[in-house]
Amino acid sequence: MAILQIGAGGVGWVIAHKAAQNNDVLGDITIASRTLSKCEKIIDSIKSKGNLKDTTKNLAAYTVNADDVDALLTLIDQVKPDLVINAGPPWVNMTIMEACYQAKVSYLDTSVAVDLCSEGQQVPQAYDWQWEYREKFEQAGITGILGAGFDPGVVSVFAAYAVKHLFDEIDIIDVMDVNAGDHGKKFATNFDPETNMLEIQGDSFYWEDNAWKQVPCHSRMLEFDFPLVGKHKVYSMAHDEVRSMKEFIPAKRIEFWMGFGDKYLNYFNCMKDIGLLSPEPLELHDGTVVQPLHVLKALLPDPTSLAPGYTGKTCIGTWVQGSKDGKDRSVFIYNNADHEVAYDDVEHQAISYTTGVPAITAALQFFNGNWADNGVFNMEQLDPDPFLEMMPSIGLDWHVQELEPGQPEIHTLK
Amino acid sequence: MAILQIGAGGVGWVIAHKAAQNNDVLGDITIASRTLSKCEKIIDSIKSKGNLKDTTKNLAAYTVNADDVDALLTLIDQVKPDLVINAGPPWVNMTIMEACYQAKVSYLDTSVAVDLCSEGQQVPQAYDWQWEYREKFEQAGITGILGAGFDPGVVSVFAAYAVKHLFDEIDIIDVMDVNAGDHGKKFATNFDPETNMLEIQGDSFYWEDNAWKQVPCHSRMLEFDFPLVGKHKVYSMAHDEVRSMKEFIPAKRIEFWMGFGDKYLNYFNCMKDIGLLSPEPLELHDGTVVQPLHVLKALLPDPTSLAPGYTGKTCIGTWVQGSKDGKDRSVFIYNNADHEVAYDDVEHQAISYTTGVPAITAALQFFNGNWADNGVFNMEQLDPDPFLEMMPSIGLDWHVQELEPGQPEIHTLK
Repeated sequence: MAILQIGAGGVGWVIAHKAAQNNDVLGDITIASRTLSKCEKIIDSIKSKGNLKDTTKNLAAYTVNADDVDALLTLIDQVKPDLVINAGPPWVNMTIMEACYQAKVSYLDTSVAVDLCSEGQQVPQAYDWQWEYREKFEQAGITGILGAGFDPGVVSVFAAYAVKHLFDEIDIIDVMDVNAGDHGKKFATNFDPETNMLEIQGDSFYWEDNAWKQVPCHSRMLEFDFPLVGKHKVYSMAHDEVRSMKEFIPAKRIEFWMGFGDKYLNYFNCMKDIGLLSPEPLELHDGTVVQPLHVLKALLPDPTSLAPGYTGKTCIGTWVQGSKDGKDRSVFIYNNADHEVAYDDVEHQAISYTTGVPAITAALQFFNGNWADNGVFNMEQLDPDPFLEMMPSIGLDWHVQELEPGQPEIHTLK
Repeated sequence: MAILQIGAGGVGWVIAHKAAQNNDVLGDITIASRTLSKCEKIIDSIKSKGNLKDTTKNLAAYTVNADDVDALLTLIDQVKPDLVINAGPPWVNMTIMEACYQAKVSYLDTSVAVDLCSEGQQVPQAYDWQWEYREKFEQAGITGILGAGFDPGVVSVFAAYAVKHLFDEIDIIDVMDVNAGDHGKKFATNFDPETNMLEIQGDSFYWEDNAWKQVPCHSRMLEFDFPLVGKHKVYSMAHDEVRSMKEFIPAKRIEFWMGFGDKYLNYFNCMKDIGLLSPEPLELHDGTVVQPLHVLKALLPDPTSLAPGYTGKTCIGTWVQGSKDGKDRSVFIYNNADHEVAYDDVEHQAISYTTGVPAITAALQFFNGNWADNGVFNMEQLDPDPFLEMMPSIGLDWHVQELEPGQPEIHTLK
């Protein structure tokens, strides 16, 4: 058995640690990225933490340009993996899927191939390019598992669990995500600032009454009382799983909500107002041309540098409302992750941890045959039970909270 | 008669218009700058507004590199001016003063030659380099008038007027500056963003009890009820005239205060927190090296573009406290300028207008012989009466408001 992991950023860091802790099942591990030293740094961390469970198995670093299908095919031919995991940026999903299809190797990723904010790459079109591979993967006899992080990912498994066990009919699905942690910096992003800032400033899309609704960023808000971390304001935002849930779980409204503190939003709005969040080229007075967003990226702390001092918890879950046995029902299915616990386990923070743990849980479901049908699948389509049974042992537990049924009060801002 | 004006930015724009309106006294006008088109644009504006009083006099544009003494000498030799006015950035004061000394031509500028925030260029050393020329100018038989804008400039004339007419003894001089105008942009600076942002983030220096006191920017605040524009928060800030007043007008405390709205300060603090106000080189991920402050400059609106839509008023003045005839006295000597009135007169906004009008009033005092002694002079040293008598006819009136004597309540922040 063997896996090939592409990408050595924050999520790649956690995926590699978690793969190593489960290499008795997953076999040899190869970590490949554009920058070899980033892979080697992860391997050093795995070894120094004693996270390589079966020390007779290989753990190796390679260089690869994931934009190049031929380079990927050469690497796959060398490594001969049973599963390729894209732990890197979503914009290389397509080249890796194509390489997997050509090499007849199964595939797993943690977020959708589009930026969710450019023309033709927004929520209503989100998975179109990747779903084009459904028949190809089926014919090739391989499995593709899409969006196997926490959100997208586990939140869809929670929804599938609600459909299977908790509801007869579902009216509303609200995905709720808040990071109540503190990294001690005035302003920083938890993952790549460029990806983060593009994602946040895009219009939000939600599905309601059989139609897509488009609204400006941070213009729909509600307050939610999260388990352990308390009340937070959350804002409607474009996110992968709104597209896939709409496809697989009929509901009157499906929406994604992200928590933003007032302080964070103030920085965000200042930067947006002065034009610093723009990806458009800007000419300086000396003729140098830069993208403002690249300048911001260079100014902000490297997200991976935040992990050591990070304290506090996240809470991510799926709030489902509908009816069971003729009665209204409202449940919140969720996880709390702790930044310090994550750091103790894999030397990284909880944002990456909540993405990496589900990816390896899903990989293990593929290896044990529960999630190994031929074709391309989103998480809602797969049996939630074996996944949710295993996830706590990989590092993230989950709970079901019964709430008072009733529509949330949604505030329209601006 | 002839004048040579160096610089064609916002202040240069107003100085040229006001010189043209008074060219029956000032004679031929030459506007020189690194960029010829900027001079030509000003000349077009002067002509289209009908602001050239004596149309038989010359109005010409030249290119010059004001960092180059020899280039300046060549231009002076060609133009043969009676007065050179530096209407450009303060960092070329020194080369222009040197050229004037060598060519034996009188000199006038509107702000001090240092940045007021770098080591050795702060308030306690502010005029050192320029005062080195006192004897040289005297021996050469020429006049140097320093800091002849509004602040520095008129506020010192107000202080000299207070000494001459209103007080027997002076305790406190607070220079107060608020721009209560609205340019309609979310964030913009009224003059060069680079100069502005460097100046604002530097430590403040004030003179108290025979010593310099140094405090961080925006850490000392008071509220003041300005005539016409109402109550505003003003913050202690490093400024030219604190140095020169300390030299020429004995007082217990001398301090400069600038009004900043909460919204403005919020933008400023966000930009400062993320490092965007730094002049230090920053390497982007692709290897490009930029100064963050230069990126900000390219992002923000060109200050000269703000003038057409600018509404509202400024209020700048000198608040003097002390005693007269054995009784405590507190007076505010001030001007209100109006952005729309300034635009109607010279097609520019009131910030540049309040600098340009005093410069030409001072130039006229030089030409009529009231302010034409040999040597280098700050505005406090010169007779305030003829200047203040003339200034309203050039475009800015002034008033004396009696206040209730009493120390202002100064808040220490952070």
